[in-house]
Amino acid sequence: MRRIKVGILGATGSVGQRFVQLLEGHPWFEFGALFASERSVGKKYREVAKWSLPSEMPEEAADMVVKSMDTIGTSTDDLALMFSALPGTIASEMEKKCAQAGYAVASNVAVHRMEKDVPLLIPEINTDHFGLIDVQKSNRGWDGFIVTNPNCSTIVMTLSLKPLMRFGLETVRVATMQAVSGAGYAGLPSMAILDNVIPYIGSEEGKMESEPLKILGTLEGSEVKNAEFTICASCHRVPVMDGHTEAIWVNFAENVSEEEVKKTFKNFTTDIKTPFAPEKPIIVRDEPDRPQPKLDRDAGHGMSISVGRIRKGQLGHEMKYIVQGHNTVRGAAGASILNAEVLVERGFI
Amino acid sequence: MRRIKVGILGATGSVGQRFVQLLEGHPWFEFGALFASERSVGKKYREVAKWSLPSEMPEEAADMVVKSMDTIGTSTDDLALMFSALPGTIASEMEKKCAQAGYAVASNVAVHRMEKDVPLLIPEINTDHFGLIDVQKSNRGWDGFIVTNPNCSTIVMTLSLKPLMRFGLETVRVATMQAVSGAGYAGLPSMAILDNVIPYIGSEEGKMESEPLKILGTLEGSEVKNAEFTICASCHRVPVMDGHTEAIWVNFAENVSEEEVKKTFKNFTTDIKTPFAPEKPIIVRDEPDRPQPKLDRDAGHGMSISVGRIRKGQLGHEMKYIVQGHNTVRGAAGASILNAEVLVERGFI
Amino acid sequence: MRRIKVGILGATGSVGQRFVQLLEGHPWFEFGALFASERSVGKKYREVAKWSLPSEMPEEAADMVVKSMDTIGTSTDDLALMFSALPGTIASEMEKKCAQAGYAVASNVAVHRMEKDVPLLIPEINTDHFGLIDVQKSNRGWDGFIVTNPNCSTIVMTLSLKPLMRFGLETVRVATMQAVSGAGYAGLPSMAILDNVIPYIGSEEGKMESEPLKILGTLEGSEVKNAEFTICASCHRVPVMDGHTEAIWVNFAENVSEEEVKKTFKNFTTDIKTPFAPEKPIIVRDEPDRPQPKLDRDAGHGMSISVGRIRKGQLGHEMKYIVQGHNTVRGAAGASILNAEVLVERGFI
Amino acid sequence: MRRIKVGILGATGSVGQRFVQLLEGHPWFEFGALFASERSVGKKYREVAKWSLPSEMPEEAADMVVKSMDTIGTSTDDLALMFSALPGTIASEMEKKCAQAGYAVASNVAVHRMEKDVPLLIPEINTDHFGLIDVQKSNRGWDGFIVTNPNCSTIVMTLSLKPLMRFGLETVRVATMQAVSGAGYAGLPSMAILDNVIPYIGSEEGKMESEPLKILGTLEGSEVKNAEFTICASCHRVPVMDGHTEAIWVNFAENVSEEEVKKTFKNFTTDIKTPFAPEKPIIVRDEPDRPQPKLDRDAGHGMSISVGRIRKGQLGHEMKYIVQGHNTVRGAAGASILNAEVLVERGFI
Repeated sequence: MRRIKVGILGATGSVGQRFVQLLEGHPWFEFGALFASERSVGKKYREVAKWSLPSEMPEEAADMVVKSMDTIGTSTDDLALMFSALPGTIASEMEKKCAQAGYAVASNVAVHRMEKDVPLLIPEINTDHFGLIDVQKSNRGWDGFIVTNPNCSTIVMTLSLKPLMRFGLETVRVATMQAVSGAGYAGLPSMAILDNVIPYIGSEEGKMESEPLKILGTLEGSEVKNAEFTICASCHRVPVMDGHTEAIWVNFAENVSEEEVKKTFKNFTTDIKTPFAPEKPIIVRDEPDRPQPKLDRDAGHGMSISVGRIRKGQLGHEMKYIVQGHNTVRGAAGASILNAEVLVERGFI
Repeated sequence: MRRIKVGILGATGSVGQRFVQLLEGHPWFEFGALFASERSVGKKYREVAKWSLPSEMPEEAADMVVKSMDTIGTSTDDLALMFSALPGTIASEMEKKCAQAGYAVASNVAVHRMEKDVPLLIPEINTDHFGLIDVQKSNRGWDGFIVTNPNCSTIVMTLSLKPLMRFGLETVRVATMQAVSGAGYAGLPSMAILDNVIPYIGSEEGKMESEPLKILGTLEGSEVKNAEFTICASCHRVPVMDGHTEAIWVNFAENVSEEEVKKTFKNFTTDIKTPFAPEKPIIVRDEPDRPQPKLDRDAGHGMSISVGRIRKGQLGHEMKYIVQGHNTVRGAAGASILNAEVLVERGFI
Repeated sequence: MRRIKVGILGATGSVGQRFVQLLEGHPWFEFGALFASERSVGKKYREVAKWSLPSEMPEEAADMVVKSMDTIGTSTDDLALMFSALPGTIASEMEKKCAQAGYAVASNVAVHRMEKDVPLLIPEINTDHFGLIDVQKSNRGWDGFIVTNPNCSTIVMTLSLKPLMRFGLETVRVATMQAVSGAGYAGLPSMAILDNVIPYIGSEEGKMESEPLKILGTLEGSEVKNAEFTICASCHRVPVMDGHTEAIWVNFAENVSEEEVKKTFKNFTTDIKTPFAPEKPIIVRDEPDRPQPKLDRDAGHGMSISVGRIRKGQLGHEMKYIVQGHNTVRGAAGASILNAEVLVERGFI
Repeated sequence: MRRIKVGILGATGSVGQRFVQLLEGHPWFEFGALFASERSVGKKYREVAKWSLPSEMPEEAADMVVKSMDTIGTSTDDLALMFSALPGTIASEMEKKCAQAGYAVASNVAVHRMEKDVPLLIPEINTDHFGLIDVQKSNRGWDGFIVTNPNCSTIVMTLSLKPLMRFGLETVRVATMQAVSGAGYAGLPSMAILDNVIPYIGSEEGKMESEPLKILGTLEGSEVKNAEFTICASCHRVPVMDGHTEAIWVNFAENVSEEEVKKTFKNFTTDIKTPFAPEKPIIVRDEPDRPQPKLDRDAGHGMSISVGRIRKGQLGHEMKYIVQGHNTVRGAAGASILNAEVLVERGFI
């Protein structure tokens, strides 16, 4: 199979670098163009990206000359797909421009997630939502389209909620302990977080309280009907490099045992078999003190979430558990790549 | 006023050292004896205590010769009060022995907290529970008695719950982000917690779910009638030196506004005016990202808790907030000292 | 004594905040004006300073309206002294403007340190260098003048070198392990330093290799004759909040025993008795594993350095030791304040 | 090729676990027996090893029943090689017992390293020292033998010194910033090292000052003639998980340029081509702020060291540089495995 040429919008930033890292040697995709802000345009990627990941910068990307986003739509190229890791301020305009110009856009950015005709995808959960693509193209008159993945902390939680829907999910409360990489490379000064907890992450609680209802909703005709339960989030930053840990309380309509919940997690499978799809989306840890970000974030090459400490709450029909996932792999760049793979598999690209 | 001579049981350990540090220059108490395990007995405190606090070891304690607990009750001394920072395994026997020998025991240990005739005290909340002391002496036939303070994470939360009782507290959910000093000096290997979160602390959730109900209960005759609401806790360790941060959800019987909750916190006062009693037991932070352990743990010399981020939940009558307090001062040694001060003030010593 | 009104240049930044914190309640100085960049001018200090220190923002500063540096020299005020915590880019122009306008300037900034007629001061070492003030005023035709304190890592090391000069210091090698607060509030992203060491701090090694030679030099006529030995530095950042730790090798002209070195450190005294002067500039730790930043940075209210692990090197006449000091107190704002105090005491202000 | 059955002495500890992890799927070796202390004997490895590495415990080891070291030499087994990760207190006796019983022992323990007839090996440097094996067998009358690898911080430094020998190495000074994993799982309490530097590691400086001279020495007849230069070390622990960083000063007999040193590092190659031998033992970083443990520790699967910041010292013929290496892979278990591979390749096993 000939590899599809992809562009990365915002390639020099923290998530942009993660895209470059994860796409190295991808069996279906190859680097077609790296886009960044004007100060980087015309220079080699290796000169402008302050590489901050443990592995070496991929050779195939290092010598590419960074392109200007101004050229998008005005020149001919051989790109079919754009990954977007743009800052929120310019993402909306640029992603729309790309979709209009006929590209498929797999975006990690929040700005379009909650628009009615934009799919907000976790492929193991809601491939039916791919149906929104045609609605979107028709609504907007675009040749291309935009698909999105959820916020990092949302993905981790929502994957764990999916199998629990069967028990009649009524309310969810979640306290997050989020890694610093979620704030971007320069997002969080070391003086702020060393030996500290910051009990606030801008806009994060709102995202966690709204996005899952769309993701877990069902496509009815040309609209997603939201899932009907309530989420109440409290979000906190902790001095951890990668991996979001979330303490979750769920209340069910019915009484459920710890064993049933555990079994339901263990039995959760996926029919997504693309390169980035983890064999097991949910890994169940039986140890009393797992999951932990340091030990579990790389499970399934960073694409599996891990759950543990499943235990009855004090109230009837309440269950507590812990979920953990890699915030910049499963929760960001890896999520967009998985979305793109499914787009390819289903013929959208 | 002549100072009261006090003994410290378990003086070389982490909490024991905090007792020694905080009691230096105390206006009412002076070091009478330092007790530790057999391998330290007969040696100077400075030789056996591996001092791990930023301030210097108090000179008045440094040259004291560590005593054996075997001598308690068998010899004459001029001690009136024992602070207990003993390991759980031997605390019960030793504390009883001290009470029997006629000492007042102010214990930071869990073992007797939930016994019906043992006061579990937060002086700003439940000085009526001092009434259990006579019950206890009578029940046990002791000349002395035992009073206890709650678990560190319990104290921090319960102080914040007290003023909210007026709104008809029905359920509480709490996710803790606890400092490593709560595990004792050698309790938590650095390899376990650097760049990590450990979502498990042995027995902690049970303590947080039961102790507050006793503390917030009322003494009726010779018994404490527990408060009637439900607590559901999830406890986690984070790489922070000192200061427990707790995310709390409370559900009330009635609808309450954020402003009412904030005002209620601000108006909470205490009539305890002893040396360790903080002027303001509860400090309300208005900044969007406070309280934080690094910035707030030393508020009120470590004896005040700080609350912030008071905001409506998604469900009717639900409120979320963050509370933070110093776990080894307000949550351990300082709590015992405050208890002892009130004992003195009320004539029990 | 009536307190002297002082201005703080760059009052909202990290070092500026430390000035505000340390000057609260100072017996000789009071806040006269807080200066910051144009975006803060005209607003209250509490609104523009993102306070990042554990203690509360001093009330007396909080409600002051931040002033523009444009007004300096053009209007009448009652300030006598300016503390400078300006960014390097604008410090030179502003500090000169202040000196010209007749103010004494006590600067923490590097830009003028190595100029021949600018004193580079550590009052316990080189009060003779105050003699440069008259030279400077005469050279420049200023009514005021500039004095400076050394770079943070230089101060810590140089204080420890002073008493060793008597043994014929020939070469010094130093490896630093520097705290993140030295980089300023937003100077070091958490993603860069969590679980990491960064073996590079821009310009730091050059400062450590040159500044001590001036400081330890002697004023001969109108010039400082540099000390004659060689320093070779390697500078590194570690995940520590406050407190620089430095491993030092010194080679002497003669053979010296560990005991002599230790005794020399212990006997080092100062006749500076101003409020910020530490009683003991150098504290000698006898424990095998001290000094440590967490335990020793606050010694002498952060104004003492601590030395330890004094031991023979492998080469003849070589000695190794560790020195530690608080980088933003002794190494920055506190150093400028101590300089200013000595200026007052000696009648320069 | 049929795989060789190996035993691991001390398999449950921190280094023992690293052996188990690294040997999973090794093309030449397979798990033959796991040995641990009496309290683990007879139980499955998965039940007794508190697994603390990010990857999963290897399935092939997990169900093995832990054996007693008492049986060594008394029963028949099919092991040919023992890896030793024993505590120092019992290592000497056990390793000798194994060698006597005819096993090859590849030890990570310090106890026999400096014995005259025991090879202290870094295969890229001193394969001639394998010649000591026959000397040892003859001296001791053993069928088997012991080979050792150096201390973690020694290996990292010494690999970098080897290519510099050509310039007439005279003195080396080294300041280490060592990861916590070097202290073993429970070796360093989190309370000791969070937000701190500990400028002391027991016995470490002595090892770094003596081991390299043996390693870099040459086998003359039946003895190693030590290299003749002087090392002076200062060792420090920092809050880093894995990866030792070392600041090094070297003084040469002749004047050498930075470019020559860099080129010499780059040209350093090895003819060891076994599975664990890194393609490039030394990786040269050109960035101004590398190597860093977080970014470079996994270079060459953790078996390469990284050097950078090569720059002239202040003194004639002095050069400074930084070296970094993975302390529990290249510096411990991986080093023993590499030794064992070379033993196989050269026919000793």
